[in-house]
Amino acid sequence: MITSLRPVPRMAPHVSGDLPGPRSAALLAHQERWESGARTYPRHLPIALAEGSGSFVRDVDGNVFIDFLAGAGVLSLGHNHPELVRAVERQLGSLTHGLDFPTPAKDAFAEAQLSMLSPERRHHTRLHFCGPTGANAVEAAVKLCKIATGRGDLISFQGAFHGSTHATMALSGLVSQKAPVRDGMPGVHFFPYTADGRAPDDRSMSGADLLEQALRDSNGGIPPPAAVIMEMVQGEGGNNVARADFVRKVRQVTRSLGIPLIVDEVQTGCGRTGTWFAYESYGIEPDVIVASKALSGIGLPVALILYDTALDTWAPGAHIGTFRGNQLAFAAGVEAIRVIRRDDILGNVRRRGAQLADRLGRLTHVPWVREVRGRGLMWGIELADPRNGRPASSVASAVQRHALRHGLMVERGGRDDAVVRLLPPLNVTAEVMDMACSILTAAVLSCTTRATVP
Amino acid sequence: MITSLRPVPRMAPHVSGDLPGPRSAALLAHQERWESGARTYPRHLPIALAEGSGSFVRDVDGNVFIDFLAGAGVLSLGHNHPELVRAVERQLGSLTHGLDFPTPAKDAFAEAQLSMLSPERRHHTRLHFCGPTGANAVEAAVKLCKIATGRGDLISFQGAFHGSTHATMALSGLVSQKAPVRDGMPGVHFFPYTADGRAPDDRSMSGADLLEQALRDSNGGIPPPAAVIMEMVQGEGGNNVARADFVRKVRQVTRSLGIPLIVDEVQTGCGRTGTWFAYESYGIEPDVIVASKALSGIGLPVALILYDTALDTWAPGAHIGTFRGNQLAFAAGVEAIRVIRRDDILGNVRRRGAQLADRLGRLTHVPWVREVRGRGLMWGIELADPRNGRPASSVASAVQRHALRHGLMVERGGRDDAVVRLLPPLNVTAEVMDMACSILTAAVLSCTTRATVP
Amino acid sequence: MITSLRPVPRMAPHVSGDLPGPRSAALLAHQERWESGARTYPRHLPIALAEGSGSFVRDVDGNVFIDFLAGAGVLSLGHNHPELVRAVERQLGSLTHGLDFPTPAKDAFAEAQLSMLSPERRHHTRLHFCGPTGANAVEAAVKLCKIATGRGDLISFQGAFHGSTHATMALSGLVSQKAPVRDGMPGVHFFPYTADGRAPDDRSMSGADLLEQALRDSNGGIPPPAAVIMEMVQGEGGNNVARADFVRKVRQVTRSLGIPLIVDEVQTGCGRTGTWFAYESYGIEPDVIVASKALSGIGLPVALILYDTALDTWAPGAHIGTFRGNQLAFAAGVEAIRVIRRDDILGNVRRRGAQLADRLGRLTHVPWVREVRGRGLMWGIELADPRNGRPASSVASAVQRHALRHGLMVERGGRDDAVVRLLPPLNVTAEVMDMACSILTAAVLSCTTRATVP
Amino acid sequence: MITSLRPVPRMAPHVSGDLPGPRSAALLAHQERWESGARTYPRHLPIALAEGSGSFVRDVDGNVFIDFLAGAGVLSLGHNHPELVRAVERQLGSLTHGLDFPTPAKDAFAEAQLSMLSPERRHHTRLHFCGPTGANAVEAAVKLCKIATGRGDLISFQGAFHGSTHATMALSGLVSQKAPVRDGMPGVHFFPYTADGRAPDDRSMSGADLLEQALRDSNGGIPPPAAVIMEMVQGEGGNNVARADFVRKVRQVTRSLGIPLIVDEVQTGCGRTGTWFAYESYGIEPDVIVASKALSGIGLPVALILYDTALDTWAPGAHIGTFRGNQLAFAAGVEAIRVIRRDDILGNVRRRGAQLADRLGRLTHVPWVREVRGRGLMWGIELADPRNGRPASSVASAVQRHALRHGLMVERGGRDDAVVRLLPPLNVTAEVMDMACSILTAAVLSCTTRATVP
Repeated sequence: MITSLRPVPRMAPHVSGDLPGPRSAALLAHQERWESGARTYPRHLPIALAEGSGSFVRDVDGNVFIDFLAGAGVLSLGHNHPELVRAVERQLGSLTHGLDFPTPAKDAFAEAQLSMLSPERRHHTRLHFCGPTGANAVEAAVKLCKIATGRGDLISFQGAFHGSTHATMALSGLVSQKAPVRDGMPGVHFFPYTADGRAPDDRSMSGADLLEQALRDSNGGIPPPAAVIMEMVQGEGGNNVARADFVRKVRQVTRSLGIPLIVDEVQTGCGRTGTWFAYESYGIEPDVIVASKALSGIGLPVALILYDTALDTWAPGAHIGTFRGNQLAFAAGVEAIRVIRRDDILGNVRRRGAQLADRLGRLTHVPWVREVRGRGLMWGIELADPRNGRPASSVASAVQRHALRHGLMVERGGRDDAVVRLLPPLNVTAEVMDMACSILTAAVLSCTTRATVP
Repeated sequence: MITSLRPVPRMAPHVSGDLPGPRSAALLAHQERWESGARTYPRHLPIALAEGSGSFVRDVDGNVFIDFLAGAGVLSLGHNHPELVRAVERQLGSLTHGLDFPTPAKDAFAEAQLSMLSPERRHHTRLHFCGPTGANAVEAAVKLCKIATGRGDLISFQGAFHGSTHATMALSGLVSQKAPVRDGMPGVHFFPYTADGRAPDDRSMSGADLLEQALRDSNGGIPPPAAVIMEMVQGEGGNNVARADFVRKVRQVTRSLGIPLIVDEVQTGCGRTGTWFAYESYGIEPDVIVASKALSGIGLPVALILYDTALDTWAPGAHIGTFRGNQLAFAAGVEAIRVIRRDDILGNVRRRGAQLADRLGRLTHVPWVREVRGRGLMWGIELADPRNGRPASSVASAVQRHALRHGLMVERGGRDDAVVRLLPPLNVTAEVMDMACSILTAAVLSCTTRATVP
Repeated sequence: MITSLRPVPRMAPHVSGDLPGPRSAALLAHQERWESGARTYPRHLPIALAEGSGSFVRDVDGNVFIDFLAGAGVLSLGHNHPELVRAVERQLGSLTHGLDFPTPAKDAFAEAQLSMLSPERRHHTRLHFCGPTGANAVEAAVKLCKIATGRGDLISFQGAFHGSTHATMALSGLVSQKAPVRDGMPGVHFFPYTADGRAPDDRSMSGADLLEQALRDSNGGIPPPAAVIMEMVQGEGGNNVARADFVRKVRQVTRSLGIPLIVDEVQTGCGRTGTWFAYESYGIEPDVIVASKALSGIGLPVALILYDTALDTWAPGAHIGTFRGNQLAFAAGVEAIRVIRRDDILGNVRRRGAQLADRLGRLTHVPWVREVRGRGLMWGIELADPRNGRPASSVASAVQRHALRHGLMVERGGRDDAVVRLLPPLNVTAEVMDMACSILTAAVLSCTTRATVP
Repeated sequence: MITSLRPVPRMAPHVSGDLPGPRSAALLAHQERWESGARTYPRHLPIALAEGSGSFVRDVDGNVFIDFLAGAGVLSLGHNHPELVRAVERQLGSLTHGLDFPTPAKDAFAEAQLSMLSPERRHHTRLHFCGPTGANAVEAAVKLCKIATGRGDLISFQGAFHGSTHATMALSGLVSQKAPVRDGMPGVHFFPYTADGRAPDDRSMSGADLLEQALRDSNGGIPPPAAVIMEMVQGEGGNNVARADFVRKVRQVTRSLGIPLIVDEVQTGCGRTGTWFAYESYGIEPDVIVASKALSGIGLPVALILYDTALDTWAPGAHIGTFRGNQLAFAAGVEAIRVIRRDDILGNVRRRGAQLADRLGRLTHVPWVREVRGRGLMWGIELADPRNGRPASSVASAVQRHALRHGLMVERGGRDDAVVRLLPPLNVTAEVMDMACSILTAAVLSCTTRATVP
């Protein structure tokens, strides 16, 4: 336990020396001897984690960091939220693993999930519990739609990230990941993703206009697809917030053409953007919702899809998997929803989001800061070379390292990893947010000043 | 807690009334209202689970069952092994979720896993932590081999099961699951799986002979593949135990032709067949090992691949995923290996396996019992119509239901689900094994007597 | 022989009675009994052909038609051009079929083809003789580029037509043809085709801009492709003439990114648009040219690709086929080029094209005529409902039938077959052109008048 | 014209000097400057062809060869059969090119083709005229079956050759051709081809047994396929003659499982094996027949499929193409069937085949000759190293060159091109056959003697 943090929750994070400290360095070196060359986070944030508490994390050398990575958005109530820990402990004594059998924990979890939907939606919604990863849930969503429609083609958007399995990688934009892997899932067609402030100008057709044009064209090359899949905010793609007219047009076109719309809420779901699911703020209703990361609130693996009953045509056993009945995650998830409701966490998301927007918004005058964008507690700072507009990956990297050395963990994403990404716990306090913004502001100013001098 | 079971570990399981009991029936009915039509286990075993303890499980009506399903082989040390529970509780207070950062728990887990390999193997082995499902690990293994070889084709075997994602489904034999899903992963070629006692006779070429013939043929239609993937014992495929000469020939051919061999040990691994990995007893060395289910010993989701350093050519980020750092599973997994060593669990697997083989082997004189087969604590009873040799799915179903009503949970699998499958906890006692065998023997005799009367 | 036509080459075409006449009707009925349901032309133009001469064709009932279909653009010098007939007769006595052996006829043909290229181009050009269809040549072009680049993805454009084989159908826009055929060639990505007068307005990004944006985006979802394939004028797609800035941008982007550019000149090549290949008038240099239809000038099957020597990395036997040495076609093709040069046929194309543009251009005031467009002697009249802009397929069909009844054969194409297409022989006379324009003008006026009355 | 040959049809072929002669060498060198690196025949047979007559061909240097290549089996009545030449000349004056319009020539051709079928078959047969290559016809056959069944998978056999387009290459065995081309048509599964004398021994399951086992296995990995495609004699694969029980079992299994059977008769059809189609001698009825090469008898490109009316569910335009109405080929094809009937050419095939079998059968005592096999006038001599059974490609090459130098053109094929292949014109005389066998016998004896001496 980070006992020192418990009584002093707003204590300043501090880094006691150079990073990585000697114990982190030893573990990192050890890891390098046996871990896959595909490892990623420790390459950007070279520390070894020991424990976490709320919005803080401590490395094995005793350095404490504000954790605005939050397990890639998983830890919606921070590390080891005490009520969630107790819920897990209670369940641990009775049943951990239940396949897809009904259990009281699963039943309560399903009820809790359904209760977060609008009443109209709830009564025609089916849940499928998937292998406990977002990618597995996307796989299931795609299979569901392929089976229900009898079709094979799929529509995705540039900048999308849906996972690393063959099929979800095919649906993702990241070329470097997919190019070396032959014979991925065929049939994925990409369209531009029209994000707030990203469209070159108003004159252009949005991605949805292009999509409609292609799909309505009997000579457009794309057979009627099994589904369109999209994120409301592209997380890994660089924290791109979809423009409202774009999302609504996609929904209108897909509905008009009889194409199921899958909304991937793996990262945006469970309150991250200020509503339970991000699609709600767009005023649309998807046919399939993919949820995972923050479902348990405490980082336990779980994933599911929620979909329209009309699509439920697949056969028993159509998508199976061993770990689909993670009872600990179910118990935590029920408690998480109780806490989120009781503590008005969605309200906190909006307030802290406004605070963050206010503080970081001031950085937009910095020449290397192309854009500060986000929604709720999902934000990105895009760094670009002011001379040519190119992604400034090295500056973003410098900002990330600078912040880390001063006690703040943040992630990067987007094209060339040039977007500094913030995913704080949803129950972050105003004080911690303030401190984080200060650290980050200093990092940006310091690194961009140095960057512009040469 | 199943307190009544703790002090009386060898008490008879008992079912207090008709199945499902009223509380189970209510939960089942509730589940049907919102759960996916793809749900499977509750269709065969219509009960709702409340809690488990060791080799026993209790439904919500208070009925107690011997659990020879064991979470589809996941619960290698039974439900809620007290030392594993304590290990999870300890970790729960410090860190649950660590992405792919080094942490003490992860480091210990990796060390423990490596320690189970032969010393020669250990020093040229890399671990990649995958999304916590067997399917995700198979996806990673396939991507690893595709990237390292630059190839796209894959070889699998009839009867294989590797998962439900697009790519792993493509690698699996089950036609009913894959046929309705268009545009799966291309490039998978199937060969016969030559199992103990299953080959029609000695005159035929084994699957390995056919594989060699195809791959050595410059006109054989199959380009040099990226990998061959196989199970040592096909679990879902019907508990088919690979013939030793078949496995060795596959290894020899793949080595000779420069094709990586992936051994899927998701179900057979972690001691299930009497050695840590099943391949050990075949005297071969695979290039990639896929492990998942029983890694934590207590049912917490985790998966990884262990592979030859020479294949480690993929780039940072080549296979990412959020839940790859399940610290609770790591803590439990370290403890599981400690317990397995201390209690000579592998010895118990062999002894209880012999006991099971002895008891159930007597059923082979029953006309409807085509074969009783297995290795370690992974067994199957294949039911077939003695008049025509066809799979007797309805008899297998009757046996499963009969056993359930008398206090024993077992699974089915194989062609037409005509194989009754047994996956007891690896620390099952002689008494519980005895009781389970008695229940099952009675079920087989009763159901096959009725089946043959018409 | 159409003897009556020979001495009176400018006699009026005449249809002696209802169509189809009794003999045509009998042959059509006979054909229906045994020919594939996939047959097409006789459904639109219900006649049976007996013989042709120059720009005229006679059906089996003696009705004579101006043939502005010209064998789908194949008969560049009209039916049975006497000098080409003699060239074929001469060759027929010595060798008809030569595989890919060198022969004097093949050598002369290759020399003639190379002589039509610019001198700079000629010296780094390779020819591959393909199976004698445009589709086979496109298949070869694609394989060539895949082998040379080691890549698999391909870029095509909405409205494209490249053939009916699995791979060329995948590259084509026509959804109705490809949708019912599972498991076509994977990896084709479609972009808008920016044609003269077709772009909604100047504000939009062209297809080339969208292509560049997608390919330069490291998160754009499309791996570096093996090739971009395009037509300068989309024939089957509705006679869409590419906008010059679009074509040049595609060339610039592909060159800059190291992507081979295949120009499909199957229909536009051999003088159809007023230059030998249509790309010449765009001021670009493709990496691969696909040629077929009019290569022999007299309708004999032949196809080839002409490509940059740098791409010639494929192995002996990489693309084989029996009928790649059609000596009769070679002999005719040599003669065709001689005639085309001697008679300044390209000049005639431009003059007759101007005549046609002048005459048919007057139809643009007709409300149902959305656009009259073309280049050289490749023209289309697009019919659209003036009330909603929708393709007016039934009006186009009525125009086609009306014209046929008055002695003019024309084709239809484009979305919903709403474009009346004109592909006259390249040596058509001013008189015949005049007559054809009169017939077609009357047909358009008559059919659109009736169409607008309801 | 080879006038010197006409009056002296049984004159000895003679080669006047070294090969290639100076004029051939010049043309070969010229060709190398501009022709694709994929060219094949001139690499094995380095001559330039000038003219042909009957079973003879003359190179540009005046050397005369017996042509037992016959345009890869296309020239069933030899070069320039005078009656076929006249038929072409007659048609040339009236119409060369007819798309898919009915014409008298096409009608007569279709009637002639149907007349070669059994009366029962004829009345439920549909013809589809394809782009004029065997590959295009195979593409059409596959699309037909995919559309009719709604399925995508396909079954082919090791050693198969069906063409060089993406889809037909995918159906072919030749690994070297397909391996470098990414993203071919997915879904092809290969089974062993059980040929006369090729099965290792009688104890093994035939390819048909393995096929049945795979397709009847609900866990066999292969969804119900759209079609099985096979050759009765694999030509390019090495002149492998299918075993009768194998073919019948394939037919029985496919019929029983509702899978269309496509028989590729491109090389075996039109009398080559002694019956009009080779399947007739096996006593089976395919669902789709693919025909091409020898349909015109004189080497003009034409191809079609003949299929059961029940499969005719595709839409108008489902498989289009420009050169599907080659009127010259139709006219020649009608005449070819008249001549074949009148001159009892099928009887000649059987008699000359027996003569060939008798003469070349004596070579089986030569240690390097593994097998002499064939049917009708389609024969192969397989050369293998007697010490290890490996294909003796260099010996086969030496035999081919030796024969060429002594006046006989033969082809090679099969694994590593180690099979010398004979495809004489079907009207070859006994004298020419005798001479060819003498040349070939001498070549085999000479080259194998030298080969064994090392």
